[in-house]
Amino acid sequence: MTKQRIPHFATTEEQLCCADSSSRARCRIAIGKSLTLPSCRASFFAQTCCVVLTLLVVSTATADEGMWLFDDLPLDVLETQYGFEPPRDWERHVMLSSVRFNSGGSASFVSSSGLVLTNHHVAADTLHKLSTPEHNYLEDGFLAKSRGAEAKAPDLELNQLVSIEDVTQRVNAAVTGEMPTAEAYRARRAVMARIEKESLDKTGLRSDVVTLFGGAIYHLYRYKKYTDVRLVWAPESKAAFFGGDADNFEYPRYCLDVAFFRVYENDKPASSEHFLKFSKDGAQDGELVFVSGNPGRTQRIFTVAALEYLRDKRLPWVLNLVRRLEILLQQFSFEGDEQKRRARDDLFGIQNSRKAYTGMLQGLQDPAFLEAKREQEEKLLEQLAAHPRLSKYTDAWQTIAEVQAKQAERLGQSVALSRRSRLYRIALDLVLMATEDQKPQDDRLREFRESARESLEQQLFSPAPIYDDLEMTKLADALALLAELRGGNDALVRTALAGKSPRQRAAELIQGTQLKDVEFRRRLAQGGLEEINKTTDPMIRLARSLEDDYRGRRDVAEELQELERQAYARIMEATVALEGTGSYPDATFTLRLAFGTVKGYVENGQTMPPWTTLGGAFEHESTHSAKGDWQLPRSWLEAKAALDLSTPLNFVCTADIIGGNSGSPVMNRDAEFVGVIFDGNIQSLTADYFYSDTISRAIAVHSSGIREALRTIYDAPHLVDELGR
Amino acid sequence: MTKQRIPHFATTEEQLCCADSSSRARCRIAIGKSLTLPSCRASFFAQTCCVVLTLLVVSTATADEGMWLFDDLPLDVLETQYGFEPPRDWERHVMLSSVRFNSGGSASFVSSSGLVLTNHHVAADTLHKLSTPEHNYLEDGFLAKSRGAEAKAPDLELNQLVSIEDVTQRVNAAVTGEMPTAEAYRARRAVMARIEKESLDKTGLRSDVVTLFGGAIYHLYRYKKYTDVRLVWAPESKAAFFGGDADNFEYPRYCLDVAFFRVYENDKPASSEHFLKFSKDGAQDGELVFVSGNPGRTQRIFTVAALEYLRDKRLPWVLNLVRRLEILLQQFSFEGDEQKRRARDDLFGIQNSRKAYTGMLQGLQDPAFLEAKREQEEKLLEQLAAHPRLSKYTDAWQTIAEVQAKQAERLGQSVALSRRSRLYRIALDLVLMATEDQKPQDDRLREFRESARESLEQQLFSPAPIYDDLEMTKLADALALLAELRGGNDALVRTALAGKSPRQRAAELIQGTQLKDVEFRRRLAQGGLEEINKTTDPMIRLARSLEDDYRGRRDVAEELQELERQAYARIMEATVALEGTGSYPDATFTLRLAFGTVKGYVENGQTMPPWTTLGGAFEHESTHSAKGDWQLPRSWLEAKAALDLSTPLNFVCTADIIGGNSGSPVMNRDAEFVGVIFDGNIQSLTADYFYSDTISRAIAVHSSGIREALRTIYDAPHLVDELGR
Repeated sequence: MTKQRIPHFATTEEQLCCADSSSRARCRIAIGKSLTLPSCRASFFAQTCCVVLTLLVVSTATADEGMWLFDDLPLDVLETQYGFEPPRDWERHVMLSSVRFNSGGSASFVSSSGLVLTNHHVAADTLHKLSTPEHNYLEDGFLAKSRGAEAKAPDLELNQLVSIEDVTQRVNAAVTGEMPTAEAYRARRAVMARIEKESLDKTGLRSDVVTLFGGAIYHLYRYKKYTDVRLVWAPESKAAFFGGDADNFEYPRYCLDVAFFRVYENDKPASSEHFLKFSKDGAQDGELVFVSGNPGRTQRIFTVAALEYLRDKRLPWVLNLVRRLEILLQQFSFEGDEQKRRARDDLFGIQNSRKAYTGMLQGLQDPAFLEAKREQEEKLLEQLAAHPRLSKYTDAWQTIAEVQAKQAERLGQSVALSRRSRLYRIALDLVLMATEDQKPQDDRLREFRESARESLEQQLFSPAPIYDDLEMTKLADALALLAELRGGNDALVRTALAGKSPRQRAAELIQGTQLKDVEFRRRLAQGGLEEINKTTDPMIRLARSLEDDYRGRRDVAEELQELERQAYARIMEATVALEGTGSYPDATFTLRLAFGTVKGYVENGQTMPPWTTLGGAFEHESTHSAKGDWQLPRSWLEAKAALDLSTPLNFVCTADIIGGNSGSPVMNRDAEFVGVIFDGNIQSLTADYFYSDTISRAIAVHSSGIREALRTIYDAPHLVDELGR
Repeated sequence: MTKQRIPHFATTEEQLCCADSSSRARCRIAIGKSLTLPSCRASFFAQTCCVVLTLLVVSTATADEGMWLFDDLPLDVLETQYGFEPPRDWERHVMLSSVRFNSGGSASFVSSSGLVLTNHHVAADTLHKLSTPEHNYLEDGFLAKSRGAEAKAPDLELNQLVSIEDVTQRVNAAVTGEMPTAEAYRARRAVMARIEKESLDKTGLRSDVVTLFGGAIYHLYRYKKYTDVRLVWAPESKAAFFGGDADNFEYPRYCLDVAFFRVYENDKPASSEHFLKFSKDGAQDGELVFVSGNPGRTQRIFTVAALEYLRDKRLPWVLNLVRRLEILLQQFSFEGDEQKRRARDDLFGIQNSRKAYTGMLQGLQDPAFLEAKREQEEKLLEQLAAHPRLSKYTDAWQTIAEVQAKQAERLGQSVALSRRSRLYRIALDLVLMATEDQKPQDDRLREFRESARESLEQQLFSPAPIYDDLEMTKLADALALLAELRGGNDALVRTALAGKSPRQRAAELIQGTQLKDVEFRRRLAQGGLEEINKTTDPMIRLARSLEDDYRGRRDVAEELQELERQAYARIMEATVALEGTGSYPDATFTLRLAFGTVKGYVENGQTMPPWTTLGGAFEHESTHSAKGDWQLPRSWLEAKAALDLSTPLNFVCTADIIGGNSGSPVMNRDAEFVGVIFDGNIQSLTADYFYSDTISRAIAVHSSGIREALRTIYDAPHLVDELGR
């Protein structure tokens, strides 16, 4: 499972969202989960977390590089390089056929009745939440034999991008050059909030202002939002994640990493006018293909100082946290089969993160890479210094370096409680909301504005199960971590521990809180600040006692973020002035189009084929003695004789993708569905910083493999029939 | 397996030995291995690593607390509390029956023909080194059906303590109060070296000066040394480490954690005049028992500042390293069955360390514990301050605090290459030796003195297999760690990486070095500095280029160590002056006697029995569905019908033990063997800092279980017959 994790760290914003308890739990991806941004309310993620460094990548786009905006596709490149000219409304059809999982993933409509195809690992969070000790859908799979049997996800939100509007002028008009950093940040935040609110009021559509090219462009994206999302089919995790952690980010692969949902409106399957038809035979070797999805974040504009911060501080720090959580969850899983089931989704995500971050760090630790970047940067700085009008811009690099130094100092101050404990996250949200709701819209923390209320409440009042034992284990570790980071004598640590050991305190909090009861949460939310101040619920009291510290750190983080944003905007300006306008902005967890060709590669003298087959999966199983994660599910073994073993299962292409692209449809020129992205190979993990098509590849499940599996293994002819209808 | 790890961190000395590459690989236990101090040449460990803080624990010894010196047993306590008066020569008999594994463990003679009984996990390093892809003795066990089939361990050294001499006066005479710290350190080191050298020359016995009571007493310990050590029997790891990592440090337990060796002299079984007879029925509930072994290190005298450093800096730091290595080895093991075999011994050790350190940190993070320590310390400081003659002593606490602060700064500077890569360790030793050998004895680094030469060479020229893939994985990670700690731009990092990525560089070094060839090592050692300077071997060149940095950091570490040593000595003086002489010194990986009673306990309302049975092992297996680490080996299943299932297998007692005690014999009043220590329960992990007999317990394999297993499961009647003969 999992791949394409959102490479998500290294900026003030990220630190705000992910390392701190700051805007955090929603962004626990940083040490959380695969590409799926689980528990991240992606609205805020898209708006708050990802937009900061969305900068024009200038004059470097080559070959199949690029995550292109739908309103600005590289038509000349497609024409020159591939002789392809999209027919009229091609982009609009693809855009409307694309779906975003707000929890952090991509997908597409594949029938006119609201059928949505994505990855099993994008669905994993929902599979986990729908499971019980009796029915483990994550492990055993799920199939609704009829529409009535489709199972409602407790807290999914799917978004369909329906319009793009340029609002750059209006945003820029609100911020003047004389404003101090913090004021500029507030002013920008305020005008963006007003634009969103007006749009929501006017259209009823989810409306997000997205910062592109580091603030050179602001887009207003309007989404049709689906919150009644039902599970239709998912295979066993043994099929979806065949080869497990060991095969993750490797190729050749043999994973059926696919799941189906259906969106409903008024308790009926939604009608999806735009959807992708299933290609008859899928894509051929060398064929041009397109990927439509929501890449989370790239950092291709980063300065050397920012990359060094990543390499020397941020990634080592994050990896320590990731490994800590991995071991913790492994140990918890030892306690029994039910514990294993409870921790499994978390553990998969964390292993995926560890592998991804390790790969990224290895890329950065190759001296050759940073040397090349340094040379490039030095050359640019020399040109600027020699330029009469542009020399003043060189201070922006210095600002970035200073911000990195401050980030490094802040690394050790994190309070990670909200990222580990869902109950604490709920408590903190309720506590913050009580105060934020009393403020004017513009002054509120972003996630508490009216435009975001529905998404917030969906998470806050989610009936998804919360397991006391797992919560206790994670909260105890988070409290221990807090004590380690700040030292046992720190006043805040003493407050948090209340004289107990981390384990005793966590047990007391989890056993004592009523927040497991959704109705109790609703009552607290309705009661506002008065109710929050009155309740004796220990988790609320804890969140209340840590609130000031949280707000203080978040303020600092947001100020650093604004400083960085402004500096990168200046770097963009200077670069554009020198080298002309560029090609595509860094990723923002919003809809982009990538393209490339189906293509194998040679690694260490070994030829990797463009695709693998169903038969290859059985061979791969026997090569590994059908041990551990290399056991195919029983359903495959039973169906083997009936299967066409030559059917392609996975394939690779050169399209430029990254975390967030999981579940993205792969299409041919006719916008037919030929596959679904689920991973990148290990060499693609440096795609955060640079694209290469030498041996970096996106990995997809082949359309033919999906169809053959549904028909012959999963006994779901009704789904096969529905595809493309 | 594993338990009783040597809780080994937190002091300058330890940092020198374990976190740095400094005196390091020999002490990789800190992030290395169970109680066995694997790869640590315990001579240096005992002398260099463990002696620093060996301080009188004053006026706190209660109940069964204490790791007593053999020449100063608490006869009054034994008399008053247990009505036991040891017969004439009892201590001497027990002392001469006790054996130390220089690699970090304890054992005893159990026959007159040199038969030595210890833990399977003490033997694991040897089992691993004797194994091949075809014969996996660690997993599958080993039995020599005849003496001729006994298998020579490649690099074991066993020590039998034969005499104790007080040399305090001579050591103290060499150091005057006016000497600066560094000079005092050198002077002390020099006189200790002279005493050792003279003793070695005179007696031919291994001679170690051991610092006790923080320097209040120095003992010269003389050991008969055995280097021809042969493996006689070991069970399968499934029996020895039944329940695996999950059951580790837990009770009730069901582990046959036992192995036999035999020491040889002149190619014949050595005659062991003193040995322990096997008790007929083992120890009964409530019976007084004794434990004779080599506890590694305790820190019961530590000041609050030292404990806070452990809690807030040192342990979190070490745990990050431990978890990093654990994940690395897990990933390596995924690559195949042979990789799993190669990494297994390392992985077991690391998991054991992680669990032990986690338990210790949890103990320290309980605010109640440090509050109690703080009150005690404040009271003592008040009494001192009010005392006309003793008030000057209070600065010692300040010195300790300052040293901790400096240690904290040094944490991030470590170069851990030598702890991860055996080949680099060998290279560094050869490089250091070339220079050290040109100096006068007294000026040399301790491990290069003549008195230590034999032990050094045994390690340096060990034919134990070195696996390229595992070495490469570990060295690449160590290089990456070095880059993370110092930053990728650091000059030393650039030297170490030589323009390559950590993985490329590690591959180049491991593939390029000739150090795998023992003869090449010998030639380099014989060739001295000239040969070292001449060789183009890339590993030697790397060690040479990092040598200055290594020596510089080691100097600083040793100075900090001396400062700390002197401060603790002053604390001792002051405490003794106030409260009178105390009881037993902190542990020093030298022979001690502990005592206690066989006794169950109550935990969370649940009664833990004083012992478990062979039948209980089968029940425990079925409770866990015979899955994962809860599978008994086939030999047990086949023998089940013939076994007396009521035979005791493991038992617990209140004796005061710690890492290094693994393999220690448990004896009754008649000095008969009744069991062998192999673990402590999770509550005992805080024994580093304080002893408690409420629910902390030492866990041992019962003598009756050993005999029944040998007879009925392992078909080894000849060994049963030999026991006690």
